[in-house]
Amino acid sequence: MIVILKPKTSKKQVEEVAREVQKLGYTPHPIFGELQTVIAAIGDERTHHTLESLTVFPQVERVLPVQKRYKTVSRESKSEDTVVDVDGIKIGGGNFVIMAGPCSVESEEQLISTARAVKARGAKILRGGAYKPRTSPYEFQGLGREGLRILAAAKQETGLKIITEVLSERDVEHVCEFADVLQVGARNAQNFQLLIECAKSRKPVLLKRGMSERIEEWLLAAEYILSQGNPNVLLCERGIRTFETYTRNTLDLAAVAIAKKESHLPVIVDPSQGCGRADLVPILCRGAVAVGADGLLIEVHPFPAEALSDGQQQIDFNVFSQLISELEPFLNTTKRKLL
Amino acid sequence: MIVILKPKTSKKQVEEVAREVQKLGYTPHPIFGELQTVIAAIGDERTHHTLESLTVFPQVERVLPVQKRYKTVSRESKSEDTVVDVDGIKIGGGNFVIMAGPCSVESEEQLISTARAVKARGAKILRGGAYKPRTSPYEFQGLGREGLRILAAAKQETGLKIITEVLSERDVEHVCEFADVLQVGARNAQNFQLLIECAKSRKPVLLKRGMSERIEEWLLAAEYILSQGNPNVLLCERGIRTFETYTRNTLDLAAVAIAKKESHLPVIVDPSQGCGRADLVPILCRGAVAVGADGLLIEVHPFPAEALSDGQQQIDFNVFSQLISELEPFLNTTKRKLL
Amino acid sequence: MIVILKPKTSKKQVEEVAREVQKLGYTPHPIFGELQTVIAAIGDERTHHTLESLTVFPQVERVLPVQKRYKTVSRESKSEDTVVDVDGIKIGGGNFVIMAGPCSVESEEQLISTARAVKARGAKILRGGAYKPRTSPYEFQGLGREGLRILAAAKQETGLKIITEVLSERDVEHVCEFADVLQVGARNAQNFQLLIECAKSRKPVLLKRGMSERIEEWLLAAEYILSQGNPNVLLCERGIRTFETYTRNTLDLAAVAIAKKESHLPVIVDPSQGCGRADLVPILCRGAVAVGADGLLIEVHPFPAEALSDGQQQIDFNVFSQLISELEPFLNTTKRKLL
Amino acid sequence: MIVILKPKTSKKQVEEVAREVQKLGYTPHPIFGELQTVIAAIGDERTHHTLESLTVFPQVERVLPVQKRYKTVSRESKSEDTVVDVDGIKIGGGNFVIMAGPCSVESEEQLISTARAVKARGAKILRGGAYKPRTSPYEFQGLGREGLRILAAAKQETGLKIITEVLSERDVEHVCEFADVLQVGARNAQNFQLLIECAKSRKPVLLKRGMSERIEEWLLAAEYILSQGNPNVLLCERGIRTFETYTRNTLDLAAVAIAKKESHLPVIVDPSQGCGRADLVPILCRGAVAVGADGLLIEVHPFPAEALSDGQQQIDFNVFSQLISELEPFLNTTKRKLL
Repeated sequence: MIVILKPKTSKKQVEEVAREVQKLGYTPHPIFGELQTVIAAIGDERTHHTLESLTVFPQVERVLPVQKRYKTVSRESKSEDTVVDVDGIKIGGGNFVIMAGPCSVESEEQLISTARAVKARGAKILRGGAYKPRTSPYEFQGLGREGLRILAAAKQETGLKIITEVLSERDVEHVCEFADVLQVGARNAQNFQLLIECAKSRKPVLLKRGMSERIEEWLLAAEYILSQGNPNVLLCERGIRTFETYTRNTLDLAAVAIAKKESHLPVIVDPSQGCGRADLVPILCRGAVAVGADGLLIEVHPFPAEALSDGQQQIDFNVFSQLISELEPFLNTTKRKLL
Repeated sequence: MIVILKPKTSKKQVEEVAREVQKLGYTPHPIFGELQTVIAAIGDERTHHTLESLTVFPQVERVLPVQKRYKTVSRESKSEDTVVDVDGIKIGGGNFVIMAGPCSVESEEQLISTARAVKARGAKILRGGAYKPRTSPYEFQGLGREGLRILAAAKQETGLKIITEVLSERDVEHVCEFADVLQVGARNAQNFQLLIECAKSRKPVLLKRGMSERIEEWLLAAEYILSQGNPNVLLCERGIRTFETYTRNTLDLAAVAIAKKESHLPVIVDPSQGCGRADLVPILCRGAVAVGADGLLIEVHPFPAEALSDGQQQIDFNVFSQLISELEPFLNTTKRKLL
Repeated sequence: MIVILKPKTSKKQVEEVAREVQKLGYTPHPIFGELQTVIAAIGDERTHHTLESLTVFPQVERVLPVQKRYKTVSRESKSEDTVVDVDGIKIGGGNFVIMAGPCSVESEEQLISTARAVKARGAKILRGGAYKPRTSPYEFQGLGREGLRILAAAKQETGLKIITEVLSERDVEHVCEFADVLQVGARNAQNFQLLIECAKSRKPVLLKRGMSERIEEWLLAAEYILSQGNPNVLLCERGIRTFETYTRNTLDLAAVAIAKKESHLPVIVDPSQGCGRADLVPILCRGAVAVGADGLLIEVHPFPAEALSDGQQQIDFNVFSQLISELEPFLNTTKRKLL
Repeated sequence: MIVILKPKTSKKQVEEVAREVQKLGYTPHPIFGELQTVIAAIGDERTHHTLESLTVFPQVERVLPVQKRYKTVSRESKSEDTVVDVDGIKIGGGNFVIMAGPCSVESEEQLISTARAVKARGAKILRGGAYKPRTSPYEFQGLGREGLRILAAAKQETGLKIITEVLSERDVEHVCEFADVLQVGARNAQNFQLLIECAKSRKPVLLKRGMSERIEEWLLAAEYILSQGNPNVLLCERGIRTFETYTRNTLDLAAVAIAKKESHLPVIVDPSQGCGRADLVPILCRGAVAVGADGLLIEVHPFPAEALSDGQQQIDFNVFSQLISELEPFLNTTKRKLL
């Protein structure tokens, strides 16, 4: 850490801070500049007390961390790409996966028709929410256990693997009986208890970025999972909240590239949540491939106008089919192998 | 809802949308304007399917909701102020409460000395985190059950009521044995399963606004609690995430005034999280009183420089004491009675 | 416009608002819903008074505009792509242009070496700032007229067209003697006097999106130029300001796709400002092509570490060269013809 | 500056960077930590080249500035409050000023009736826009020179001083004939040419914070004016752009307190733009006083529903009158003397 002192801080005041730095476990190293003194505090920032609390000294202006706060998710700790194996579907390391399906599981007919349609066009994993986190308590909350049963039926019918969201620590065990990948949504992106419980299940976890989560915080949330001994994390960029109103969220495609640089984990893009508009989903899929994503999570519904949740951002079978056709040259160009 | 059609939409296309509006349970009422047609969809938006999914029709440009989505939290449903009774401490309706204490419970000595200091200056409720949601898994995670035990000791010693954060549905029952108010933090602001579990405990719940939560969403999160039959909710503004870097968050004091207009629930302000800087806490407390807050949640620590979490935003006993003195004329001016 | 009245508004109060709607030039059309009344106000919203001022009536809850505020920039007013002709370089309509060069013109040697390097790799337009808008008055402000002279020398030497920023209405005439495209920067994105002055020059104008400008506002800024009779506008997405700190700005690639749908104008992407990091520039160029951009504006410098402005986001000749090679298959895939 | 090198950087690579640090005018001072090396670069950051460009070296991870970038606006350069003298009205240093009037000058009758009303309740300075920066070119652009003439008539009639916005460098001289304070709006907050021109006029300048301007950038914009030798700057907080939609902007009252700490300049709050809603203006005025503002800029109109611009945020004479009454105890409490 670097402790920046205010201009005109006396030597005695510098020493006072240096002593506190030492007390907190670092070796203080003062540097007397032309205008200001800074104290470099030498030590492992991840295992020691933060020094940001030193700003309570009146002579301290700011404290700047030096080291990155994440460890096991970082490229520095593991330089080669992690490949997450979802019951035989190997995601990452050049392999590109399509996950698709409805926002919510609404009925057996709806889900199985969708499963067949997306499988026919190359999806390997079926998405569908059984437990839905809805802004209002009066909105459709998902079919719950019945939804999970329908997901199992679709899996049996098509052989697709299943990804579904888990909202509650208490549901993790039960959901694991049906899901091949546990999805943690944006609203639970820093629900660390849920992350830990998912980690312990040993299932692969798709971890969405929170609505206002910095990339550093997103990687640290993944660190919660890895530090529990579960390395099977798929990072998922799904748009951040900004002032723009033409889109529901602002898809941050640079974050995909950064996550790939900073971390060895695969990065999935969710264009449906990412913009909240069906008409933009196909073009954002292309953008996602171009910036190096390892897969897509796409909302597909037989008749979006009557979807029980988020119809405005779901695409129908025809659009999905065309989207995949148009995507192939981009996958070739980026040397990604469609699973 | 208002369904806005694109310019030059044919009569037949208008009818197609109107039929779908009807199918989804509303009475369509087309209005032919000079440039564009809109269809007013008459019906209760809170119990019917949203029409936003109609944007998947190519002739639909946008869909605008008309009605507010929250019910029981609204002033329309209850015009007089709700007074939340925390074991005899009645918050709201002109009564102003000070809740204060350390960010984290660190030791019996730390907590009890703080409890005495804040009680002496008028606090009625002691805060202190036993379970801490930390951005990094390597940071201090709180003392857990031992922290709760220490809170109980401080309560016994001082008679202060206790507010403490609950992170997990599984902990709600246990935390309720020690807490008089359950605190739900910003990261769990839309962890609806946790909200429901807290609601069921019948304890008062202090519900923080999420980091990027719109006021409407915040009130809808409160609606999750009220709709479970628990009316004892304290809304808590604690700053939102913006581009500004001089402060950790941007305290949205207008949101306090809006929440008071839109809802009958008491509104508490957390200036410590709200700015993340100890030096601004006193002045933001004044701002909070001036805009009509019903109470404050303030982080106080015997020696902030050595706090195990968020030392930079905690104030010491002297600053707290002076803050309260300076606050009194503001409370008088706004006709708030300090509990 | 749609005027939404509060629940329980009396018939008399509805009439009061309806009269005011009429007075302001619209035909009021009340619709009595189950819970709330709305008044549809029929009329051309772009030529009449806004009704948002009606919220000052206590019975009015909100006012929702129906019509889009932009006219001549819209696809509705002109369905085919605009092709902007920069002295023979035709941008848009399937033609893709590379504009490249240093952030600031620093010296004749610096600029001419850069011009040669970028020309050799396919750039058709040379960028270089002579007038620089700098956050601090103590930072390098550009060479001014001498910078323009150097740009002219580079043009003569290489035949590249010139794009350079204009900061002041007073400079427009002078800059036009040297520039083939006038660049209006993000900080002046709503400096309407400057936009009007640039419009009057009849030169093509590259209009950057403001740091916190909604897409609607960006298009309305372009409308200022078109409504002066100058149709030669290049929209430029350069990132918006968000809470993220790993990048200087958040490049909003969805905005490129939206601008192309909403407007007939060409859209250029500036990846250098868009992320503020040289290491991400190449990959964001690919993303920009994938989402349908019509060109790129890239900062290139012989030795970025010693650049007088924004060295951290400038790439050197080698990186530029490799970037172009890697871009070609993406251009082929999107059927863009590199100019 | 602090140059942070990546873990495992070799000694030779450290030296390479140190040499470049030296070349750019600083004295390099490497500090070898446990995990990472940092180079403290000693020198005056405001007069030297920034080192952020060093991130183009692959071994450099980040560069952190140490010193504040503003000089003459800072409290360090001048500890006592600046008092800005507007033709005898002395703002700051404990004196509190009310500036009020319509958003736009619409007619002599409108302005003079407003001037009388606000004067009667204690306003000392009359606001009114003659030149209006409007998002759309089809909206009312202000009366221009005729508006200035009307402002002069109102001044003659009431003796109030005049504040009015200037949009164009070319208008500065002309506007100065009529205005006692030049207002620079949020859209021109970083239009440095306009700032310089205003500075040269020697008139007091009210400088609004830009919609997405960090406090540091706002102070640096003020530095542009002071560094031209004009110390008469009033900083004006008017809300920042965030994701919240219940308000037009998010009024950042903490920024008022920070600006007062960081700078000696008076700080004015504009609650009308700050929230964009007439109903919140009075309560935000109280909040502004509580956090230490030196004055208010309030939009007042005889009949807001028919205002030609921003009617939704203008208050009428009655509300203004009541607002002032309610404000007085807050001014007393904060020991501000109403001018």
